[in-house]
Amino acid sequence: MSITFRPQIKDLAAYKPGKPIEDVKKEYGLTKVIKLASNENPLGCSPKVKEAITNQFDQLSLYPDGNATSLKEAIASKFAIKATQVLPSSGSDEMVDQVAKTFIQEGDEVILADVTFPRYLSTTKMMGGIPVVVPLKDFSYDLEGMSKAITDKTRLIWLCNPNNPTGTMFTEKTLIDFLEQVPANIIVIYDEAYREFVTRDDYPMDSTYLLEKYPNVIIMRTFSKAYGLAALRVGYTLASEEILNEINKIRGPFNVNTLAQVAAISALEDEAFLQESYQVNVDGKNYLYDTFKEMGIEYAPSETNHVFFNTKKDANEVFIALQRRGVIIRPIYGSYARVSIGTMEENKIFIQHLKEVL
Amino acid sequence: MSITFRPQIKDLAAYKPGKPIEDVKKEYGLTKVIKLASNENPLGCSPKVKEAITNQFDQLSLYPDGNATSLKEAIASKFAIKATQVLPSSGSDEMVDQVAKTFIQEGDEVILADVTFPRYLSTTKMMGGIPVVVPLKDFSYDLEGMSKAITDKTRLIWLCNPNNPTGTMFTEKTLIDFLEQVPANIIVIYDEAYREFVTRDDYPMDSTYLLEKYPNVIIMRTFSKAYGLAALRVGYTLASEEILNEINKIRGPFNVNTLAQVAAISALEDEAFLQESYQVNVDGKNYLYDTFKEMGIEYAPSETNHVFFNTKKDANEVFIALQRRGVIIRPIYGSYARVSIGTMEENKIFIQHLKEVL
Repeated sequence: MSITFRPQIKDLAAYKPGKPIEDVKKEYGLTKVIKLASNENPLGCSPKVKEAITNQFDQLSLYPDGNATSLKEAIASKFAIKATQVLPSSGSDEMVDQVAKTFIQEGDEVILADVTFPRYLSTTKMMGGIPVVVPLKDFSYDLEGMSKAITDKTRLIWLCNPNNPTGTMFTEKTLIDFLEQVPANIIVIYDEAYREFVTRDDYPMDSTYLLEKYPNVIIMRTFSKAYGLAALRVGYTLASEEILNEINKIRGPFNVNTLAQVAAISALEDEAFLQESYQVNVDGKNYLYDTFKEMGIEYAPSETNHVFFNTKKDANEVFIALQRRGVIIRPIYGSYARVSIGTMEENKIFIQHLKEVL
Repeated sequence: MSITFRPQIKDLAAYKPGKPIEDVKKEYGLTKVIKLASNENPLGCSPKVKEAITNQFDQLSLYPDGNATSLKEAIASKFAIKATQVLPSSGSDEMVDQVAKTFIQEGDEVILADVTFPRYLSTTKMMGGIPVVVPLKDFSYDLEGMSKAITDKTRLIWLCNPNNPTGTMFTEKTLIDFLEQVPANIIVIYDEAYREFVTRDDYPMDSTYLLEKYPNVIIMRTFSKAYGLAALRVGYTLASEEILNEINKIRGPFNVNTLAQVAAISALEDEAFLQESYQVNVDGKNYLYDTFKEMGIEYAPSETNHVFFNTKKDANEVFIALQRRGVIIRPIYGSYARVSIGTMEENKIFIQHLKEVL
């Protein structure tokens, strides 16, 4: 007899990350490569973060605070919520995994969009859930379609607002109309990874009040995007105490590393950095919109730090041609690609090469 | 209808970490508190680690290398194994979780010891496995009893050598005799978290050769103990490429943070620090042995950085009395407690207070 694995994971594929910048440089003999592929903050992170990390240098051999007490309190204080409703985790990947392990049983129906953050699908399958996929409409979440997909077997619904990779958002009214139709026993995951980049005022910017009215809602946020802490792995879940108590049962006891905890606290304090990141993103987005219009390129209106656009060629070929020229973007499917908004200099280099490639 | 959770996690309890040192100081009005509760390295970590972290300060906004390529190569080179047989993870907690998600199905029998690393039990239950518990014999793994517990429903066996919290080890010969009796379709997890502290020469110090002969074996190691990187969360799994390919399907794509990756690489290079940590541990262990003998305290022979001993009182009361005096140890069950080996100064302070308390 030989080794076998859980059948639920049979069809899953391992994540294939993009090539590291250094590898692209070597492969194509380039001296400069810009990466606009992972929706990272082009400004880096708050300088306060480095100081906070350095202050921990005599604590590296000690286990992290498993309760992340100070980080919970900092988040709670900033967003006027109880610390008992906050659960820091090691980035969105771990939050998605934790929720799946807490709720999804073999055979449960789980509703999600296509295309959206790919971990919703893989993690649902990992737990034996049956994915019920509702296609996007005009590159946006079809919440009406999703509510129609609810059956008595539905266990959980994944929402990403604004959406990755299309950048589109749905309004506060649309969200509430949807929540009103979801039975109270169905968990709704509401992922706000890109909330800090939203410009429209009909977006539910202060969503924490939803937790009171809809105890089946779980909000997820991250420090990987606007706060620029992707290297450190830290985000947080907001939910009822009842839900967080259950997630705590399957949570790794030291899931958020010490440096991530102190980095996130200091990042939360630096409003000026967040504001600058927002403004650079708005300026870059407007530049890309204007240039795409000039070039006749169709794009989806973005409320994130990336723009989803139609190359009208094989997006994978466009990706390869750009990579050869030192610009890394992300092909999504067919002719569609996603470009992260960089500094103005990076955006201009991207456009220059895109013009040559298309 | 109200919210429900997976029934498998119903009986699990959230991990209760010990009080942070600062809280103990405040609560008891102490100026100095020593923590000998979490088997941390009392010397800290290699000074090279701090330099490696500082060198990443301009990369904090970028996602980690999801393949941890350089760290894999450093481990592979140091232990003469193929890089494709190495999988870094966010500490032992994540490794245990990954293995459970890859192998354990509802109703699978899973063999483990009692007492041992508690995550084996909780993670087995999380995945719906049926724990088959084989008690320790003389505070040591009873591998004969474990092999007798194998049935045609057995899926996986957890081994910890040397064991936490008792500190005891089993020999290379015992391990091989056991592996010979385990059917090839049953996964054997072999956790070597404390291997760097072992002094006996009948311990399988170079265990990687086992992977060739027994492709059902998965080895786990950590940087949290001898290498002193507990704050950063990093360890690694060694296994066949076939097994690691499956684990990769359920692995979070960026599971090891950037600073942990570079810290681990530089820690691997500092042999002198590792040697010093080993020697401080041997000296401290001998001191504790001698003093325990003088005091008539029974203890289990330890091949780790902690000693399991019999307080002959309620261990929890001893723990509380010591904590009040500024020394934190870990009560395990009944009259048994575990003390981490500290610096000689810390060991002496612990003994001084223990004498007063007992």
